[in-house]
Amino acid sequence: MTPESLTGSFDRGPADLRPVTIEPGFVSSADGSALISVGGTRVICTASVSTRVPKWMVGNGEGWVTAEYSMLPASTGDRKARDISKGKQDGRGVEIQRLIGRSLRVGVDFKALGERSVYVDCDVLEADGGTRCASITGGYVALHLALAALVESGEIEKHPLTTTVAAVSVGMVDGRALCDLDYPEDSTAEVDANVVMTGDRGLVEVQATAERTPLSRTSLDELLGLAETGIDELRVAQLAAIGS
Amino acid sequence: MTPESLTGSFDRGPADLRPVTIEPGFVSSADGSALISVGGTRVICTASVSTRVPKWMVGNGEGWVTAEYSMLPASTGDRKARDISKGKQDGRGVEIQRLIGRSLRVGVDFKALGERSVYVDCDVLEADGGTRCASITGGYVALHLALAALVESGEIEKHPLTTTVAAVSVGMVDGRALCDLDYPEDSTAEVDANVVMTGDRGLVEVQATAERTPLSRTSLDELLGLAETGIDELRVAQLAAIGS
Amino acid sequence: MTPESLTGSFDRGPADLRPVTIEPGFVSSADGSALISVGGTRVICTASVSTRVPKWMVGNGEGWVTAEYSMLPASTGDRKARDISKGKQDGRGVEIQRLIGRSLRVGVDFKALGERSVYVDCDVLEADGGTRCASITGGYVALHLALAALVESGEIEKHPLTTTVAAVSVGMVDGRALCDLDYPEDSTAEVDANVVMTGDRGLVEVQATAERTPLSRTSLDELLGLAETGIDELRVAQLAAIGS
Amino acid sequence: MTPESLTGSFDRGPADLRPVTIEPGFVSSADGSALISVGGTRVICTASVSTRVPKWMVGNGEGWVTAEYSMLPASTGDRKARDISKGKQDGRGVEIQRLIGRSLRVGVDFKALGERSVYVDCDVLEADGGTRCASITGGYVALHLALAALVESGEIEKHPLTTTVAAVSVGMVDGRALCDLDYPEDSTAEVDANVVMTGDRGLVEVQATAERTPLSRTSLDELLGLAETGIDELRVAQLAAIGS
Amino acid sequence: MTPESLTGSFDRGPADLRPVTIEPGFVSSADGSALISVGGTRVICTASVSTRVPKWMVGNGEGWVTAEYSMLPASTGDRKARDISKGKQDGRGVEIQRLIGRSLRVGVDFKALGERSVYVDCDVLEADGGTRCASITGGYVALHLALAALVESGEIEKHPLTTTVAAVSVGMVDGRALCDLDYPEDSTAEVDANVVMTGDRGLVEVQATAERTPLSRTSLDELLGLAETGIDELRVAQLAAIGS
Amino acid sequence: MTPESLTGSFDRGPADLRPVTIEPGFVSSADGSALISVGGTRVICTASVSTRVPKWMVGNGEGWVTAEYSMLPASTGDRKARDISKGKQDGRGVEIQRLIGRSLRVGVDFKALGERSVYVDCDVLEADGGTRCASITGGYVALHLALAALVESGEIEKHPLTTTVAAVSVGMVDGRALCDLDYPEDSTAEVDANVVMTGDRGLVEVQATAERTPLSRTSLDELLGLAETGIDELRVAQLAAIGS
Repeated sequence: MTPESLTGSFDRGPADLRPVTIEPGFVSSADGSALISVGGTRVICTASVSTRVPKWMVGNGEGWVTAEYSMLPASTGDRKARDISKGKQDGRGVEIQRLIGRSLRVGVDFKALGERSVYVDCDVLEADGGTRCASITGGYVALHLALAALVESGEIEKHPLTTTVAAVSVGMVDGRALCDLDYPEDSTAEVDANVVMTGDRGLVEVQATAERTPLSRTSLDELLGLAETGIDELRVAQLAAIGS
Repeated sequence: MTPESLTGSFDRGPADLRPVTIEPGFVSSADGSALISVGGTRVICTASVSTRVPKWMVGNGEGWVTAEYSMLPASTGDRKARDISKGKQDGRGVEIQRLIGRSLRVGVDFKALGERSVYVDCDVLEADGGTRCASITGGYVALHLALAALVESGEIEKHPLTTTVAAVSVGMVDGRALCDLDYPEDSTAEVDANVVMTGDRGLVEVQATAERTPLSRTSLDELLGLAETGIDELRVAQLAAIGS
Repeated sequence: MTPESLTGSFDRGPADLRPVTIEPGFVSSADGSALISVGGTRVICTASVSTRVPKWMVGNGEGWVTAEYSMLPASTGDRKARDISKGKQDGRGVEIQRLIGRSLRVGVDFKALGERSVYVDCDVLEADGGTRCASITGGYVALHLALAALVESGEIEKHPLTTTVAAVSVGMVDGRALCDLDYPEDSTAEVDANVVMTGDRGLVEVQATAERTPLSRTSLDELLGLAETGIDELRVAQLAAIGS
Repeated sequence: MTPESLTGSFDRGPADLRPVTIEPGFVSSADGSALISVGGTRVICTASVSTRVPKWMVGNGEGWVTAEYSMLPASTGDRKARDISKGKQDGRGVEIQRLIGRSLRVGVDFKALGERSVYVDCDVLEADGGTRCASITGGYVALHLALAALVESGEIEKHPLTTTVAAVSVGMVDGRALCDLDYPEDSTAEVDANVVMTGDRGLVEVQATAERTPLSRTSLDELLGLAETGIDELRVAQLAAIGS
Repeated sequence: MTPESLTGSFDRGPADLRPVTIEPGFVSSADGSALISVGGTRVICTASVSTRVPKWMVGNGEGWVTAEYSMLPASTGDRKARDISKGKQDGRGVEIQRLIGRSLRVGVDFKALGERSVYVDCDVLEADGGTRCASITGGYVALHLALAALVESGEIEKHPLTTTVAAVSVGMVDGRALCDLDYPEDSTAEVDANVVMTGDRGLVEVQATAERTPLSRTSLDELLGLAETGIDELRVAQLAAIGS
Repeated sequence: MTPESLTGSFDRGPADLRPVTIEPGFVSSADGSALISVGGTRVICTASVSTRVPKWMVGNGEGWVTAEYSMLPASTGDRKARDISKGKQDGRGVEIQRLIGRSLRVGVDFKALGERSVYVDCDVLEADGGTRCASITGGYVALHLALAALVESGEIEKHPLTTTVAAVSVGMVDGRALCDLDYPEDSTAEVDANVVMTGDRGLVEVQATAERTPLSRTSLDELLGLAETGIDELRVAQLAAIGS
């Protein structure tokens, strides 16, 4: 299968990620931060530590990690109005930030974190497909750096992250399984799946959506195989960014 | 594997659904409706047809299906405050209603529907696990009945639904794959997955979430196998309810 | 006066209620509940007990009863958008739930209730006139059952309800006083009144509204007489539902 | 019965109003306005005419009258936070402004008004009981003056008001029927009723609420009798203010 | 320069204020109040004292002064919809009330005030230019009277106001510096400035805005000179109103 | 005067700006963009062109420029909750974005722009004092680049910007006039002023606020002098960034 047989924008092997860079410490006022670029998608990820936890957790000695996701108005071709100007958060954003939060929490030892909340904020600077996956992958780096600073300062003893977590989108385009779709590819995909995995290829979250044509179990399995390769590559970039 | 080796509340085979009933026409003021019960979970599903479509669709001759999901305050053990009293929709509800809408749209021929919107409202009367899946399964019946009425009255020629759509939750509890978890089972599950399928076992949506322990591809495949059996059974109940 | 001289939809004696049924325990997850049907109007009423009271009541040993009223989207002919989608509660709903709350509180011994809040939720399943009156009548049953359960479990000693409370709508249609108007009758009424009474015919709340023609004191008195008969009948249904 | 046998604050005959003054034209930027004082209660009433009508009325040649009610923060003893600071309108305010709107619309010939909206705004400057009744009585004057200006300028031919409309509160205090309760009287009343009447004593709206003790039909009739006398007196003040 | 060479509405000397009156105690339910008129602009100013302070101030023994600004719907020619009907506060109003609060706080000795909050509410009755300046000037009087009452009652020892604060608008119209612009003048001004000063001519706040033509430093200085004269005159009215 | 005589953080001459860099084209999905850094303050500025104008401008052939300002949650030391999570825009943000919009509009020829809206979005990445001034200075560059692209593509003939616009903060710290305060300096300043000027030193907006001690006209003039020097320097950076 050669790229030219695919939709015009796809010019790489089916398992290839678009170019990935992660710039740690991009926001110096944050406890941890990273600017992640995956192809034309760029997301500012920050992690902010607070000593306040949700009311229902007070006193049990454990922490919490929560995420917020937002798109800067100019991140898409047409300007996207801010949520506050419409008085309510965009439903898609709600869905995405819940996914990010659940994904990042899987790798956290909340006892080791102690009674602290960490907010991971993902603000999309430029959107060209895969923003939720880039948010998880970059958000992990921001979270890791913020927690490492707590260890460094002696506030906590043990780094609370027990595994890396990263995410990639995969999809069926013209009947073929492809990895890391950009926006034009995603728009023509029959199936779009977001896969979140730990460093040792454990599935954390799978969200597969058939936009037009239902998916077979065999194709889903093929997509998960592609995702594994992509996530291995993302993990290398994550480890480099956190200096491990 | 015998039920007694499982968590106390699970007293059936791993692939068995809880008792399912679908009462069509439960709300006589709606264009289509059903009261679905799956074990202790009961959801009022209605479908309302309107001749107005979203602004971006006007004039292209196609229709749209959208869903809203809400829990009645007394549907859970502790009273759940209404969204309006907090001024914004609950994030979980947003996520669920987006899933319901996407799932139901897969089976719709929008050209056959013509320029019409159908709202599928799913209001949970009693919640004992699996409310989003029951909403999809029951919502399909309400939608089918409302569209059948349009065909009957001659407003449209061909019934726009091209396949049934149903959903079931599956999960890993104590390392075992189980079908149709109730609330106590769901609370102790390591992995919780919602699977939406068409009548011929095509995957429409898979949402698998590892709450504690990551999931292997093998286990996911096992869960999908259980889901297929459950959805076959739900389909029989759906067909009975729509009188096919 | 024969029914046929009235507007088409009125086919019973001026003092006759439409058929009334009250199904207690309709929502098993609620502390108390009832599904009330009055003609084509059906309302799901639930009562939820909480041990939290409003801030201004903490420590004085007394309880509180409050009500919320909402219409399910498909309860009216045209779909009614949910309050949350418009960001604020419908003014009519606000007015109605305040009426329900005031009415139900009249019969409550708050000292006997102790520091507890009871929320009575009235969700209209089908609306064909008189929904606020049905909510009060059915809400009373839900409230009674929830409080009886507190007595049963020994949490409180004495049942806090000191009288039944029920409500009926009456109105002037074509110059004649009629009881329990359905929606088409109500739409053509010159005067519409909602009357709430205790079991021994004490007036709890009278809300009479002249839509077109002002009302004389004599006619108001005639309407109140009709209401008494109707409420006597509703009280019988209430007592049957609560098993007294 | 002598005043001294009553609660301390009541120092007049049971049928006596507190001193009433209506200052027409208090707000020169409004199309019509009045500052009404009833005892210690003062309400700024304005009427603003617009050539836009609600969407559902466009093209039918008729007008509409709507009301809004609000309390200035310092109008009560303790400062009352503005609705906007809490993000939603106070339930009591919603209920009151719906009453004012319904009451004022009864006297309007909407064909004579033509396709125009009139907003009657009632802003309470000082609140000492009976603010909703003062709003109706003063709002009538503001509305009348605004419509008279339309007649004067030739925009409409016939003054659209066909009758005066005024309101008074009455109540049972210590078992006695009293007219025009001030705030301390109202707080101790067993029954509180707001009565809206036309100039020829036709009932427009009756809202009687038993706060503690249910009311008999005889007592209600007694209250309505007191209200008639009070409204006759208010009508004289209204006519003086509009220069009839 | 003669007035006739200016825009039609300006019929006084460039440094002359429009007629100013301040009626203290206009709202008897407020702790302090004033109705200020500056030409056709009238603002109701009230000050309400509370013993609660913002959370971040509790326990430090100091007080706070905050302001809210709102326009009554009929205060402008066309009716202005209330903020609550649009669900959010008007941006201009936010900006103005922040200015009022900052300005009034400059003259307050917060230690002398003790742990108390004072809300200064400025509600515009009629708007003909300069409403924010009238609000500051009148708000000062309301604040002073409320604090004087605290001294009188012995709740605080020393009056916490250390200086008068007043404000006036100035602007460049047709190239000339003018004082206290009314609405038509303001609409044609090239530059519009609001100047807040203490009694001894110290600048508290300067907000100069070039609507069309940038301003030179010389012209700004000329405007500040005019403002000084105007504020001297306002101060005399303030002192008369507070009875000093 | 040497820097060491000042507050610790001030280590440059009183008229010296902190280091300034403007990176044009930072957001490739925007029509125009810039990342501006002024000391530790960094703001992402984008300009988005739309062919829709506000309703009141349709058909008059002129355009409009509006601004929005927001702080990313991690831009300050403690995480700042997003506006949407509190349901309303922060008052300070409202005030600032109105200032930015007014300032940028002064230099625009709206006829040359034609019926187009330009949104200038300023999102603070890191906040260390002077964010509103940096937003104006960087927003100008984003706006210029977006309009230049319209000229380039032939959509408009003449570049609509007629002058540069830039802003700097100045203030009195320990009795001395200083330019471009950072956050610690700003926090201890007696007077804080934001000055917006055109390229030829015309004043566009002056907002001087005495936090503690009133300001004399002489000191204000001294501050304006400092601002002129600073703005000259900013203008050089702006011109470099837009490639003039």
